[in-house]
Amino acid sequence: MSTETEENGKEALKAEIKELKEKLISMQQPLREKGLPIIVLVEGWAAAGKGSLINELISEIDPRFYNVVSPVIKSENEERYPFLYPYASVIPENGKIMFYDSGWMEAVVRKYMRREITKDVYKQRVRSVNEFERQLRDGGYLILKLFVDISAKEQKKRIRDLLEDGNTEWRVSDDDIWQHKEYELFKEAYDKFMGKTNDTVPWHVLDGGNKKKAVRDAFKLLTGMIEKGLKNGKYNGDPFKEDFPLIKMPELKDVDLSAVISDEEYDKELKKYQNKLRDLHNVIYRKKIPVVLCYEGWDAAGKGGNIRRIAKPLDPRGFDVKPIASPEPHELARQYLWRFWTRLPRSGHICIFDRTWYGRVMVERLEGYCTEKDWKRAYNEINEFERQLTDWGAVVIKFWIQIDSDTQLERFTARQNTPEKQWKITEEDWRNREKWDQYEVAVNEMLQKTSTENAPWYIIESNDKKYARIRTLKILTEALEKACEEHTVRNL
Amino acid sequence: MSTETEENGKEALKAEIKELKEKLISMQQPLREKGLPIIVLVEGWAAAGKGSLINELISEIDPRFYNVVSPVIKSENEERYPFLYPYASVIPENGKIMFYDSGWMEAVVRKYMRREITKDVYKQRVRSVNEFERQLRDGGYLILKLFVDISAKEQKKRIRDLLEDGNTEWRVSDDDIWQHKEYELFKEAYDKFMGKTNDTVPWHVLDGGNKKKAVRDAFKLLTGMIEKGLKNGKYNGDPFKEDFPLIKMPELKDVDLSAVISDEEYDKELKKYQNKLRDLHNVIYRKKIPVVLCYEGWDAAGKGGNIRRIAKPLDPRGFDVKPIASPEPHELARQYLWRFWTRLPRSGHICIFDRTWYGRVMVERLEGYCTEKDWKRAYNEINEFERQLTDWGAVVIKFWIQIDSDTQLERFTARQNTPEKQWKITEEDWRNREKWDQYEVAVNEMLQKTSTENAPWYIIESNDKKYARIRTLKILTEALEKACEEHTVRNL
Repeated sequence: MSTETEENGKEALKAEIKELKEKLISMQQPLREKGLPIIVLVEGWAAAGKGSLINELISEIDPRFYNVVSPVIKSENEERYPFLYPYASVIPENGKIMFYDSGWMEAVVRKYMRREITKDVYKQRVRSVNEFERQLRDGGYLILKLFVDISAKEQKKRIRDLLEDGNTEWRVSDDDIWQHKEYELFKEAYDKFMGKTNDTVPWHVLDGGNKKKAVRDAFKLLTGMIEKGLKNGKYNGDPFKEDFPLIKMPELKDVDLSAVISDEEYDKELKKYQNKLRDLHNVIYRKKIPVVLCYEGWDAAGKGGNIRRIAKPLDPRGFDVKPIASPEPHELARQYLWRFWTRLPRSGHICIFDRTWYGRVMVERLEGYCTEKDWKRAYNEINEFERQLTDWGAVVIKFWIQIDSDTQLERFTARQNTPEKQWKITEEDWRNREKWDQYEVAVNEMLQKTSTENAPWYIIESNDKKYARIRTLKILTEALEKACEEHTVRNL
Repeated sequence: MSTETEENGKEALKAEIKELKEKLISMQQPLREKGLPIIVLVEGWAAAGKGSLINELISEIDPRFYNVVSPVIKSENEERYPFLYPYASVIPENGKIMFYDSGWMEAVVRKYMRREITKDVYKQRVRSVNEFERQLRDGGYLILKLFVDISAKEQKKRIRDLLEDGNTEWRVSDDDIWQHKEYELFKEAYDKFMGKTNDTVPWHVLDGGNKKKAVRDAFKLLTGMIEKGLKNGKYNGDPFKEDFPLIKMPELKDVDLSAVISDEEYDKELKKYQNKLRDLHNVIYRKKIPVVLCYEGWDAAGKGGNIRRIAKPLDPRGFDVKPIASPEPHELARQYLWRFWTRLPRSGHICIFDRTWYGRVMVERLEGYCTEKDWKRAYNEINEFERQLTDWGAVVIKFWIQIDSDTQLERFTARQNTPEKQWKITEEDWRNREKWDQYEVAVNEMLQKTSTENAPWYIIESNDKKYARIRTLKILTEALEKACEEHTVRNL
């Protein structure tokens, strides 16, 4: 190619990029109106130009429409959270674009190459990545996955250039040099990872050796994806069904609620189990085992008092109660699990959710706050989410606090008649009570479909609140004991 | 005292605590209704029983009404943020209680004892603490500051007990043992700190040697404070006036807006300053200097385009644009600076605020979103806030992007007539334009009262947008150059 044609080619490329930029600008407002959230994952070789590619992409977008995160850099804490936490906790809200300046691919591949995670964990993480991407896609997210490729020769040149300039020398990490030295091994690892994560959301490889072309291609892919998204509207995936090993649960109507406990027995047992829990909390904290306790149940079933009996012996520095109310606007603007991702405890801490993500298949289902596809998809999504928690090493226990309808009526009436307790009973509670039968159908379905071996449900008979408290304490302490033992075995 | 009387005393204490607990429970709902936020700071000696005291206090509160934080433990990142960040970023929302399981006192005293901060920085931090507490109090927060005291002898016994039990041994840190060995020095340091931070919000010393009594006293203080708060309603402090060294600013009407730049000159200068900024960004990043850039200005003054020219040469991993819209409900439920505290950059990063905390003295003042006392107090509060940023080492620069009313009208009309730009112009913009004169009064007052030496305002003439861009780039690069030099000197 003569220099002249080359020059012409360059100019044409520049003009093309300019046009694509303008196209992207013109899409900002429709994106906002349609409320489409967009994820752009930019992975690739060290020194391949990921940063400057992103910079080109954002250069004309209004700051109100995008954000850039570099989760790897902010990961001092990463070991204390589930592997996907740094990414899942920063997904964009509707109408915005989030650029990930490297992300879950780099995190998995690098750790595996360093042998910091075993082959089994590698497989788990690949699975989690696929689940994560599918859930977001099914929830209406548009996802673009880019890999910026350069040759070993080009990488060497770029790293050398960076090192030779005193101002940029620090940008080259030891990890980058190591990657270059093991270029072939890395190439294999990247290819393998992309092969395993290509089905739900496909990868696009960009030629980082030709920066302008890479920029043009990225713009084309991004605007093409958005264009399609704007035309088709928000994707709302069909339920995806994986066979989780489920525990058979009884129907609520068959649960025997007659069990009671004497005051004397209660005082004795309460003391015993609270002391046990206190000791176990120390071990949990030391072994850095995360614990996620979920409470669901009928209004006035006694969740609050039950939780307080669990919390009592715990050191406040090592546990948290997260009451879950209706989602706020900034929460509604993101995938529904986001507000739970961001509330996860650090490892070694106990987190008690007072109501949970199961709202999706109960109140949101019954009140029509989500589509039928949404809540039908949620059973599997929740099973996946909880498996990601147990993969991380968490103990996940779910309590359904059960009472019968007569008991609820008694307690409602008592609340109504006690001035200090009136705030606890609202019009909404009475309205929900009207829908008892519909709720019972939903709860039964939920219990059947989400009581997995790794995150089981326990139905707690709570017509006698004191009996219920001892039951939860017993289940919890037994599960923690087992987890502490297994933790030792696992780390052998 | 005979054993019998002792026994009676114990029983009486127990009954008293029970009564106080019930009082606290009955206050939950009124607290929520009045929207009073409460901070309980629990400081004190290692092994004094801070954790179990908090546990007693929360044992009967509904989890929806409180939270416990232990900011010291979560502080891997603390060096990268302003000293008050771990505390200011978790203040409670209206109607809730936040318990700090040790906090800003411990952070200051321990660091000073370790000689990790100089005497001057110690003084700065004491001042910041007083400012922080006053601002919260003036904003309607109820604050209870407790210090749990134990003797050296008692501390020794408790630490020994903890160490002798395999389950609790890990709870004793080297720092705790060091504190015990230097008990007398610490005692002096705590006393000194409490003496210097007692005027705005007073300290209460509890006798940790007598746990039941300490619990009783804490309950008394807490319920007493709430009772008073419920009676008096939300405190709304009078403006507090400190003499900040101010830079004299011109009136907006006297600003000469005739300056223009030729396209040729613009291209040359833009390239020059963007290259300079790129290099400086590397230095900033390496030296871990935080940069806070604030943009305010008339609608259609050209803030967006100006920001994009600054952002262009920056590595996306090292900067962030934070567009500030109307506060969301969870933001409105907290002191107004909270949503800016939580958006601060890590050191070494550049954060560009597209609109800022100055909304308080402009739109919130003019639209009546806050009381007159609120916005009058804000000038000083903002000066303090910005000084806390510069104390941390941040470069704080504030741009007022200035145009005249005719230019605004031209640009509004152009936007209206260009389909791709119509979204940028709303009814609200036209309404705000009606109030130009009122805004001008507010802006002039703001510029006069908040252009401090450490965080100066720059009025940017932007009738010619290109001229304005070069001006901001020039000011920014000069400030960064100076900061890089000073950083080296300061660290000598």
